[in-house]
Amino acid sequence: MKETITTGSRAEILIQALPYIQKFRGKTLVVKYGGNAMINGDLKAAVIEDIILLSCVGIRIVLVHGGGPEIEAMLAALGKESRFVNGLRYTDDETMEVVQMVLCGKVNKDITSLIENAGGRAIGLSGIDGGLLRAKRFRAEGSPGGDLGLVGEIEAVNTEILLPLLDAGVIPVISSVARGTGSDAGKSLNINADTAAAHIAAALGAEKLVLMTDVRGLLRDVNDSDSLIHRLDRGELEQLKKDGAVTRGMIPKVDCCTLALEHGVKRAHILDGRVPHVLLIEIFTDEGIGTMIE
Amino acid sequence: MKETITTGSRAEILIQALPYIQKFRGKTLVVKYGGNAMINGDLKAAVIEDIILLSCVGIRIVLVHGGGPEIEAMLAALGKESRFVNGLRYTDDETMEVVQMVLCGKVNKDITSLIENAGGRAIGLSGIDGGLLRAKRFRAEGSPGGDLGLVGEIEAVNTEILLPLLDAGVIPVISSVARGTGSDAGKSLNINADTAAAHIAAALGAEKLVLMTDVRGLLRDVNDSDSLIHRLDRGELEQLKKDGAVTRGMIPKVDCCTLALEHGVKRAHILDGRVPHVLLIEIFTDEGIGTMIE
Amino acid sequence: MKETITTGSRAEILIQALPYIQKFRGKTLVVKYGGNAMINGDLKAAVIEDIILLSCVGIRIVLVHGGGPEIEAMLAALGKESRFVNGLRYTDDETMEVVQMVLCGKVNKDITSLIENAGGRAIGLSGIDGGLLRAKRFRAEGSPGGDLGLVGEIEAVNTEILLPLLDAGVIPVISSVARGTGSDAGKSLNINADTAAAHIAAALGAEKLVLMTDVRGLLRDVNDSDSLIHRLDRGELEQLKKDGAVTRGMIPKVDCCTLALEHGVKRAHILDGRVPHVLLIEIFTDEGIGTMIE
Amino acid sequence: MKETITTGSRAEILIQALPYIQKFRGKTLVVKYGGNAMINGDLKAAVIEDIILLSCVGIRIVLVHGGGPEIEAMLAALGKESRFVNGLRYTDDETMEVVQMVLCGKVNKDITSLIENAGGRAIGLSGIDGGLLRAKRFRAEGSPGGDLGLVGEIEAVNTEILLPLLDAGVIPVISSVARGTGSDAGKSLNINADTAAAHIAAALGAEKLVLMTDVRGLLRDVNDSDSLIHRLDRGELEQLKKDGAVTRGMIPKVDCCTLALEHGVKRAHILDGRVPHVLLIEIFTDEGIGTMIE
Amino acid sequence: MKETITTGSRAEILIQALPYIQKFRGKTLVVKYGGNAMINGDLKAAVIEDIILLSCVGIRIVLVHGGGPEIEAMLAALGKESRFVNGLRYTDDETMEVVQMVLCGKVNKDITSLIENAGGRAIGLSGIDGGLLRAKRFRAEGSPGGDLGLVGEIEAVNTEILLPLLDAGVIPVISSVARGTGSDAGKSLNINADTAAAHIAAALGAEKLVLMTDVRGLLRDVNDSDSLIHRLDRGELEQLKKDGAVTRGMIPKVDCCTLALEHGVKRAHILDGRVPHVLLIEIFTDEGIGTMIE
Amino acid sequence: MKETITTGSRAEILIQALPYIQKFRGKTLVVKYGGNAMINGDLKAAVIEDIILLSCVGIRIVLVHGGGPEIEAMLAALGKESRFVNGLRYTDDETMEVVQMVLCGKVNKDITSLIENAGGRAIGLSGIDGGLLRAKRFRAEGSPGGDLGLVGEIEAVNTEILLPLLDAGVIPVISSVARGTGSDAGKSLNINADTAAAHIAAALGAEKLVLMTDVRGLLRDVNDSDSLIHRLDRGELEQLKKDGAVTRGMIPKVDCCTLALEHGVKRAHILDGRVPHVLLIEIFTDEGIGTMIE
Repeated sequence: MKETITTGSRAEILIQALPYIQKFRGKTLVVKYGGNAMINGDLKAAVIEDIILLSCVGIRIVLVHGGGPEIEAMLAALGKESRFVNGLRYTDDETMEVVQMVLCGKVNKDITSLIENAGGRAIGLSGIDGGLLRAKRFRAEGSPGGDLGLVGEIEAVNTEILLPLLDAGVIPVISSVARGTGSDAGKSLNINADTAAAHIAAALGAEKLVLMTDVRGLLRDVNDSDSLIHRLDRGELEQLKKDGAVTRGMIPKVDCCTLALEHGVKRAHILDGRVPHVLLIEIFTDEGIGTMIE
Repeated sequence: MKETITTGSRAEILIQALPYIQKFRGKTLVVKYGGNAMINGDLKAAVIEDIILLSCVGIRIVLVHGGGPEIEAMLAALGKESRFVNGLRYTDDETMEVVQMVLCGKVNKDITSLIENAGGRAIGLSGIDGGLLRAKRFRAEGSPGGDLGLVGEIEAVNTEILLPLLDAGVIPVISSVARGTGSDAGKSLNINADTAAAHIAAALGAEKLVLMTDVRGLLRDVNDSDSLIHRLDRGELEQLKKDGAVTRGMIPKVDCCTLALEHGVKRAHILDGRVPHVLLIEIFTDEGIGTMIE
Repeated sequence: MKETITTGSRAEILIQALPYIQKFRGKTLVVKYGGNAMINGDLKAAVIEDIILLSCVGIRIVLVHGGGPEIEAMLAALGKESRFVNGLRYTDDETMEVVQMVLCGKVNKDITSLIENAGGRAIGLSGIDGGLLRAKRFRAEGSPGGDLGLVGEIEAVNTEILLPLLDAGVIPVISSVARGTGSDAGKSLNINADTAAAHIAAALGAEKLVLMTDVRGLLRDVNDSDSLIHRLDRGELEQLKKDGAVTRGMIPKVDCCTLALEHGVKRAHILDGRVPHVLLIEIFTDEGIGTMIE
Repeated sequence: MKETITTGSRAEILIQALPYIQKFRGKTLVVKYGGNAMINGDLKAAVIEDIILLSCVGIRIVLVHGGGPEIEAMLAALGKESRFVNGLRYTDDETMEVVQMVLCGKVNKDITSLIENAGGRAIGLSGIDGGLLRAKRFRAEGSPGGDLGLVGEIEAVNTEILLPLLDAGVIPVISSVARGTGSDAGKSLNINADTAAAHIAAALGAEKLVLMTDVRGLLRDVNDSDSLIHRLDRGELEQLKKDGAVTRGMIPKVDCCTLALEHGVKRAHILDGRVPHVLLIEIFTDEGIGTMIE
Repeated sequence: MKETITTGSRAEILIQALPYIQKFRGKTLVVKYGGNAMINGDLKAAVIEDIILLSCVGIRIVLVHGGGPEIEAMLAALGKESRFVNGLRYTDDETMEVVQMVLCGKVNKDITSLIENAGGRAIGLSGIDGGLLRAKRFRAEGSPGGDLGLVGEIEAVNTEILLPLLDAGVIPVISSVARGTGSDAGKSLNINADTAAAHIAAALGAEKLVLMTDVRGLLRDVNDSDSLIHRLDRGELEQLKKDGAVTRGMIPKVDCCTLALEHGVKRAHILDGRVPHVLLIEIFTDEGIGTMIE
Repeated sequence: MKETITTGSRAEILIQALPYIQKFRGKTLVVKYGGNAMINGDLKAAVIEDIILLSCVGIRIVLVHGGGPEIEAMLAALGKESRFVNGLRYTDDETMEVVQMVLCGKVNKDITSLIENAGGRAIGLSGIDGGLLRAKRFRAEGSPGGDLGLVGEIEAVNTEILLPLLDAGVIPVISSVARGTGSDAGKSLNINADTAAAHIAAALGAEKLVLMTDVRGLLRDVNDSDSLIHRLDRGELEQLKKDGAVTRGMIPKVDCCTLALEHGVKRAHILDGRVPHVLLIEIFTDEGIGTMIE
């Protein structure tokens, strides 16, 4: 490709990005990073490049990540068997220790290292650090006995440690682990990474929350992959949920979007992380990529 | 063109600019803007876009301009006849008044307006403002009677007013007019814009000085436009001058480059302003465009 | 005079200025500079001295200027003939170019140079710079076809570039030219300098707006130059206008005063610029010089 | 105890700490935390209390930790067998992954959580974050084939991310893992925690480097635990080493002390982490606890 | 005592202070210093130590003092006889001169010198300095002829000079003398030190106001020194006053407490200055020492 | 006078001050205030006005004062008899207490009150406050047994507390009392006010040191009051001293000037405080008033 595109055309393409850069400079973008984009090497490299480029043009970026597959692999390697409650895994102390270790020690530092190595400036943190995320136990709705163990629900977000980093152009990379409160004081709690990203976006008054997924976005007809909804507002989203058009797996994601929007985030995006440079395409073009909720 | 280049390719092209952005962020770039690039409407629009984009990615840009053709036109319109001294025009009080008026009132504000209108932030200044440039009369070497009138030689540069602007991401646009000293106190002096740019680059400790011209760059053989010298150092430049390979018109430009380099500017460039987006191409690619002197 | 006043008396006179200095330190004073005080050499020198002295004692000064006579002279020199609409001159593109060039390139830089040369620190700006003044076309009231061309009405004032200058003790000198909006985007619009000063004073929350004129002030009886009104409030001014006691030429000036007062400026003054050091006398004495509107 | 000591005596004891507080306020203390003090629950709680108290009285504290036992346990749990080179373990990629995961994800976040839970403010970091530690491979001296794998030697320390934290009274907790350079770019390297602490102390110009160990300090006679050397200077230390009086296990520790002192750290301490509140006792009393090297 | 308490116990005692330090760091404490604690040498030394220690752990301390005994002694030494109005001393110009001289020149500088000499940083001020306290004459209630002379009632507190001192960890020591207003402009007025402390605490939004007295605190039964009220709220205090249970001498003190609490001070304390280190005991323990009003 | 001088002339006189204001803005002026100018009511009022005016035009002023006559009067009123050593008064503890009390409590606060009352902002300090002046005992030269008691010689000046005040336009008023060091730790020492002023001027790198006296200045011929030396340099001064032309009383004053000049103060002035507004006349005119030493 490089051979066939002239220098002049390349300059033109850079210039076409200018209006988008002018629009988003100084704005905050919280990205839940996950799925294939965190597994596939090429996609991973492309995300890191996108993140650094967006940071270079003055966008304040926060990366929030989980790490399901890595946790699974480590639990398996350790021969740890899981207990299930109403079909959901119970997070006991031992499991939580593995969750924290893998998220904060492996996934988080690997992402941080990739960014630093590509010439960006990143700091890997978790909800434990600097009082960033505090949580209490989450209990499955309607099931009084449905305690899921050390799975948490966010009670408080303290962005105090993030602001000087963002002001200095540093990219915070955040593991979705929180410090427990009340009877769980001193313990770590596992937090869903989409939810953590939504809460952090809300607390920062972000311009955009982006959830990277392994689907094209929200579909009007689940069976028709061409029925992608490019854009909808919260009212339409509610109607869609009532109509049963939002799949079971999508419901927590759209709820995160709603939560963020309700707390002042301007726009929430469900993007397809399998598309290389999907972040750049979303920010720097008018292409209808993924689903945008306002 | 936009039709034939895919979104993915466009993302790739943006990413290819990243190493250059990382290299030049926070560095200072002083551009002498002039020639065709200041006359032709399309070229002009392209320069403004380049300037704003470079500013958006964190490069500190200073634009210095002259305005020969506009001055000529206004002198003609006013029926002002010129006196010549040894073949050089004598700048009398009346001419200087026109020079100042055209540079500071027309050219400077037009450029500033273009940048502001394209969404950039610019402030138009001259060497008179905030003590930026102070000058004494320049006299043609070897000709004791060769007083050229109110043509000045820079004695002092005070960058105090530029620094807070650059820190705030504002683009200073500077007319090459200075405030006189000594017996010319209270008068304005006309300064060669290349020289003004070189002195300002030196005073700012700029990374690069760029002179926009209407030629391809420095040629090894004046009659062979394919003999462009892509890169040379000060020693080679001196040799070239001794060899008579630098044309009469080029000599003052290369002298400006030498002056800047001697005062700590890292690199000086003679670029062809007739190439659209030449600034972007120079900064964002490894293409051998124009001549770079180290 | 210097001979006949003893050193002791001189000290006394300085001390008599102290209460006024204490009263106005740190306050903002916007001066519309124009009329004879901008033409006559001695008056001009006196205004510059006043401005610098007021700045030295800690008053934050902004100078706004027009330049009717210089514009007239340049239009005449260029043989440009004017078109009139309902008795008012129509500002076509060519005229506007001259207006901008003369105001920003000649008048503005000449004032700036005078202040700098007298040891003050000044920066010459226009409404185009840093988004200071944005305007739309003004149309003469009641005349649907009365388009006056590129004559503007201020829509927005952005004082962001003025505040750091005032904090640093720099005197901004501002040409009353604005950047057009909407269908006039990219064009410059001519603004009445009194109006520009009033809007800037309002935006800065100035303590005082001073309009320098070539009359003694507001007269109770137009035919009796001894009937100067020293002080009146907005209510009395409205009554005076209703009574027809404000002359046609004075109406726009008193309207500027009203506009400023309505937007929080404490006091507006119509001063006689023909009196040497009228600014100093107004600020530093209790003399009833000119008309003060509260 | 609380019952038998009167309130007045307690006040007296607080007051006795005052001269030490006055002496060390605003100074930097780098503590290598390890050994029994990081394993035994009561000792751990006491260290956390000491750290927070020292931070509260204005001492700038940095905690550096390794985590040998936790790494061993995890390698064992994963059934990972070790390869040895000249008797030293070879750190292959898989082992390094475990080292990083355990240090950064388990030990680091557990310490951070303890501090936060006790009301302190801590942020857990590693050498990977913000470019803090960069390293190349270390090779055992005298053994050209003795590559130990991903064991690193520090090349550069960038304290830029630590300074705003220390200014804000936050306690950085640092895992001794570095980002590789050269052919190890993109990889993590395992760093000896004592060495990491010494380099960080040197880069911060610390007042004190404290190494917490499981011995009383440096003994004049290894077989006589009463022969503790309370205080010695670098010269005496060199002599001691020459005399063979420093045990094999102690040599790397005293070398870390020497390194820190050579780079401007005022004093280095080898303390017995088995003594509860040993940090407080060292800082707040004149007791001869452990060995101080000047 | 020092001999019998082990180093370990001493560390424990320091650690027991930690929760209190964490609670009060960054909070403001205004102490009215007076009574025996300002006369007895040992008590004085203990107060100074307490003050410096509290300052060292980050508490912002303001010391306000009167100096009745020293004033009496100086008036006696000068043979100045007092005039009494309704049993209260009349402060004439001559007496006021002595009051100011003794408070600002002797007591204030002696306290400041003690703090500086013990390694603290203090600046001695009065209500005259930097416009800190402005007052008008106080007249005894119900007695139109009861003018007490230059005894003042505070009208305005300007804490502008205190804030940078507190931010820098300096301890302001303040004499309760104010600058008069209105017909007393240019004169100094004598202010009750408890009242001055209460007004300053209110203006600073202090956490605590502490009045050091020579009694145990508020007694439920004046004749039973064991009936100390440890804690009460404003409502209970009002009831107590209605019940006549507050002694004549205590009434002004509890009124000062009420004034401070009404203006946002969190807690007011009446402490027994005869107890060594009473400030430290109050701040650093849960002991029921003195009376706390909420 | 006011009647006979026109408004215009008054404006002229203000303008004549402008070059002096421009010259001294931002410069530091240390004034030793004393003699008749501190006793006579009219002179006092004039000094206060001068000080405030100079401060208003941006000069950084520090006032240092002694108070011999007030001290004498108080010692007499207290019936304190003096002991003399070689003709010099011995300052015992009791005398020092009176010195401190009168200087810091009476003279200092009276001057501060006068400035505040005239609309200036002043803070009264002594050498005791904030570690400003530290001193050891001074012993009369050549007399080993000539201990003068608590008379001090300055060892260290800490201007840390003065700089933020000067930056904020506050006028520090300083009593010449120092805190003792060594065996005099905890005691106050009496410092000659001229010397204190010279040391403070040196520590601040002042532009000018001004000593207000009750003589016209330095006379070439002591018996001829018309022989005033307007200006001399340090070399000439030394010669004059050798020639015996400097009177006994003048010697310590010229030595203070020499000390200040040697430590970087630009100019030292001996002025006649009996001339009203002598400070203003010195700063704002070219009149040869008093003696200037360079």
